[in-house]
Amino acid sequence: MSQPRTRVIKVHANDNVAIVVEQGGLGEGTVLDDGLVLTVPIPQGHKVTLEDIATGEDIVRYGEVIGTATAPIPRGGHVNETNVRLPRAPALHDLPLATRPAPSAEPLEGYTFEGFRNPDGSVGTKNVLGITTSVQCVAGTVDYVVSRIKQELLPRFPNVDDVVGLNHTYGCGVAINAPAAIVPIRTLKNISLNPNFGNEVMVIGLGCEKLQPSTLVEDRPVKIYENTEAADPEANVLSLQDESFQGFGDMIEGIMAMAERHLERMNRRRRETCPASELVVGMQCGGSDAFSGVTANPAVGFATDLIVRAGGSVMFSEVTEVRDAIHLLTPRTADETVGRALIEQMEWYDRYLEGGQADRSANPSPGNKRGGLSNVVEKALGSVIKSGTSPIVDVIGPGERIRRKGLTFAATPASDFICGTLQLAAGMNLQVFTTGRGTPYGLSMVPVIKMSTNSTLGQRWHDLIDLDAGRIATGEASIEELGWELFHLILDVASGRHQVAADRLGLHNDLVLFNPAPVT
Amino acid sequence: MSQPRTRVIKVHANDNVAIVVEQGGLGEGTVLDDGLVLTVPIPQGHKVTLEDIATGEDIVRYGEVIGTATAPIPRGGHVNETNVRLPRAPALHDLPLATRPAPSAEPLEGYTFEGFRNPDGSVGTKNVLGITTSVQCVAGTVDYVVSRIKQELLPRFPNVDDVVGLNHTYGCGVAINAPAAIVPIRTLKNISLNPNFGNEVMVIGLGCEKLQPSTLVEDRPVKIYENTEAADPEANVLSLQDESFQGFGDMIEGIMAMAERHLERMNRRRRETCPASELVVGMQCGGSDAFSGVTANPAVGFATDLIVRAGGSVMFSEVTEVRDAIHLLTPRTADETVGRALIEQMEWYDRYLEGGQADRSANPSPGNKRGGLSNVVEKALGSVIKSGTSPIVDVIGPGERIRRKGLTFAATPASDFICGTLQLAAGMNLQVFTTGRGTPYGLSMVPVIKMSTNSTLGQRWHDLIDLDAGRIATGEASIEELGWELFHLILDVASGRHQVAADRLGLHNDLVLFNPAPVT
Repeated sequence: MSQPRTRVIKVHANDNVAIVVEQGGLGEGTVLDDGLVLTVPIPQGHKVTLEDIATGEDIVRYGEVIGTATAPIPRGGHVNETNVRLPRAPALHDLPLATRPAPSAEPLEGYTFEGFRNPDGSVGTKNVLGITTSVQCVAGTVDYVVSRIKQELLPRFPNVDDVVGLNHTYGCGVAINAPAAIVPIRTLKNISLNPNFGNEVMVIGLGCEKLQPSTLVEDRPVKIYENTEAADPEANVLSLQDESFQGFGDMIEGIMAMAERHLERMNRRRRETCPASELVVGMQCGGSDAFSGVTANPAVGFATDLIVRAGGSVMFSEVTEVRDAIHLLTPRTADETVGRALIEQMEWYDRYLEGGQADRSANPSPGNKRGGLSNVVEKALGSVIKSGTSPIVDVIGPGERIRRKGLTFAATPASDFICGTLQLAAGMNLQVFTTGRGTPYGLSMVPVIKMSTNSTLGQRWHDLIDLDAGRIATGEASIEELGWELFHLILDVASGRHQVAADRLGLHNDLVLFNPAPVT
Repeated sequence: MSQPRTRVIKVHANDNVAIVVEQGGLGEGTVLDDGLVLTVPIPQGHKVTLEDIATGEDIVRYGEVIGTATAPIPRGGHVNETNVRLPRAPALHDLPLATRPAPSAEPLEGYTFEGFRNPDGSVGTKNVLGITTSVQCVAGTVDYVVSRIKQELLPRFPNVDDVVGLNHTYGCGVAINAPAAIVPIRTLKNISLNPNFGNEVMVIGLGCEKLQPSTLVEDRPVKIYENTEAADPEANVLSLQDESFQGFGDMIEGIMAMAERHLERMNRRRRETCPASELVVGMQCGGSDAFSGVTANPAVGFATDLIVRAGGSVMFSEVTEVRDAIHLLTPRTADETVGRALIEQMEWYDRYLEGGQADRSANPSPGNKRGGLSNVVEKALGSVIKSGTSPIVDVIGPGERIRRKGLTFAATPASDFICGTLQLAAGMNLQVFTTGRGTPYGLSMVPVIKMSTNSTLGQRWHDLIDLDAGRIATGEASIEELGWELFHLILDVASGRHQVAADRLGLHNDLVLFNPAPVT
């Protein structure tokens, strides 16, 4: 590629700002190709004005108004969080629903990966024993026993990749009858059904907790493990308070015995060739910067369209980072029912934030701002690009399972860990995570491909980043090229042929449940 | 002791119910000493009526009304959650404040323990390097590095007991400007000052998070660790995104180097003889049963009074389990200001629950009910007994530090893990935890003495329970005897002479922050 070095990026013809690409930023007095002279130094990722902007005039990026100027900004000036007024969020009552015809997208055929096919028809990308927990009280015990299982049992079951304790902070000391309690409860239940756990549900409970373990397996027969010679080999629930356990040592032996039965069945599983339509990919971004919407997220959007064309499933999420771009999404819903469901999720979150006397100005974070994002509108416009151009065929609430192939909006908070947890519950078998500022994010249940939005980070975090999208900003690669690269990487990772950085290092976050109800 | 075998316990002269002590319960037709005949089988811990109770009549336990009968219950009948109507919570507007004179309590002198005295005057019961974290994003990295520190550094510093990563789920993706955000933020800051961390504050942050690491050390000079030859030996903040780190390996080396400086200083610390007045004990109960208020909690209350008489500090907590007994506590406040502060905490929580459409009927848990607790009133009456008879000298909000010697009400949710986390933030150096149903609770930061309320549990969980208060129900020991036994055990554990069960097994819960504000 022999393109000239890119120094600023203007995304849309109507934009009156552009983003500084140069590592280290551009100094005052720098003259750009078109004669534009910088009136102040502008850091990398930050916005330079392409024309004089008067107080009250619109600042336009991605072809959309991200706010109005609070002071005059001359051509060549610096736009940041101090001189942009946050506009109102788009009203929700008269948005166009399902008005944009789906772009013609040729089916993509012949792409496959090597996955673990499950009894329920889903396909895993790993073969992991997930130990579900009904209550935080058992977390210490589960940590203890998982360590023992890894050391003493796992070596005997070479086809099982890992054992993971699904610890969390819910289950007791919570308002279990509050309306919003449905969210954490269905999340826990659905996580146990994630394709990477191979339909082997194993729940450890305490006994006296509010969230009774049987609730978590209610779709299948509850089989209680008791510490007897005739323990049920199909047992799926064990309570530490069960009177058959004479102390801690006994509990541990019981859990080990129960786990062994599950591991025996899981060890018989083998990868088989599956069509790319069995992919269920969660898209997420965290620690964003102004490049997110120019490099990594557009490449993710391109890959999203490829997966959808291949018949697969993609989720995008993060309500608070979608809210300000909602007018771009409702036209893309497949029908009015889906459109209304999308709006309902926005309304729910508006009320939830209002109830806590919070508003959307709490986003972006200080690091987002240092990375050049002036406000949540600009962040949202860059975030929704992950969804590509496909029609939105479904909307699911937090903790619900995905229901359709194609592009689904899975409503979640933007918090990386809560979003990841809810996408796990929805049934993703792989996650793509883009970051501009950098975060050592990882999940033990499904592989996470981490993409940097700028090469400064991609190079500095050489051992943490799986794919650098910064090459798009410098002109070294196109969005399409990186989108295809990501698509192929997804197939390799899903097949177990390529190990992601977080798995290589063993960097894994805990689950974080979304509990909008009170604790007690 | 040659007392007759106790089969039922009546706590107060005015009670019209008593608790079945017998392991396995009592069968229908059982005749008690006074000729009372059981009309139905009654499980252990459950209530038998001592007289005929008509529909609408009061059911009285601890000399207090726990509810009214929803149906006639004959003498010898079974009172449980199905035939007791929950009364309204006591009104908060006209409670008597500071009306009960403090009982005359002779000072208790001459009791000491071997503790670690800190620069700020507080005294630790362990010598632990606590690694504070500003955001959940660093949790995986901190887990990784703590494991390395334990293996590679800790053996060289034999006077340091442990290294603990203070991971949590706060810091970003949260409404940091919401009014209630003050709670999790001050909690994190104050935990880093817990006496067991020896005033060695070391914060690992990411860099772009909303909760900036400097906020957590704002009382002392912020000294940033940079990965250079001349790294500040006094550094107390390290951010993973710092540009001096070239990737993950570099970050880990940086954290190890920073930890080493802290460990060198901590290794010079030695235990010294300290008066019992330096104890700061958190009292808590979890997995309660009907014995809690008859055995373990009264013994805890007795020990509370001993510690207060020795000049020490005791906290009791758990707003939702205090709310229904508030009329017993406001008279005990030291003055009207403290009384009003106590009521304000109740009012705050009433509003908080109402905001989530939850109410107090969500407590007790199913296990509490199986253990004989009919409703939250009965649970509360048994819970507040932990506070003994001393005057309440202060009330602190969730996440605040304790300010006075004597008995403090530290307002927290009743959730075991949140209460424990907030008592850590308040500055406890030891916790006492009573349980009837059994929970393998433990903290890595301070020792937790676990007491069983009944000997069935005490015997079955022989390797998890530190002290069995069930001996009170059977008449083998008096409340006073067990209170003194607990007091001596507290001094032994605080001195490092006695290791509690949770520490012996390495059973430790994660921190759980109380965040009443929304996530974003």
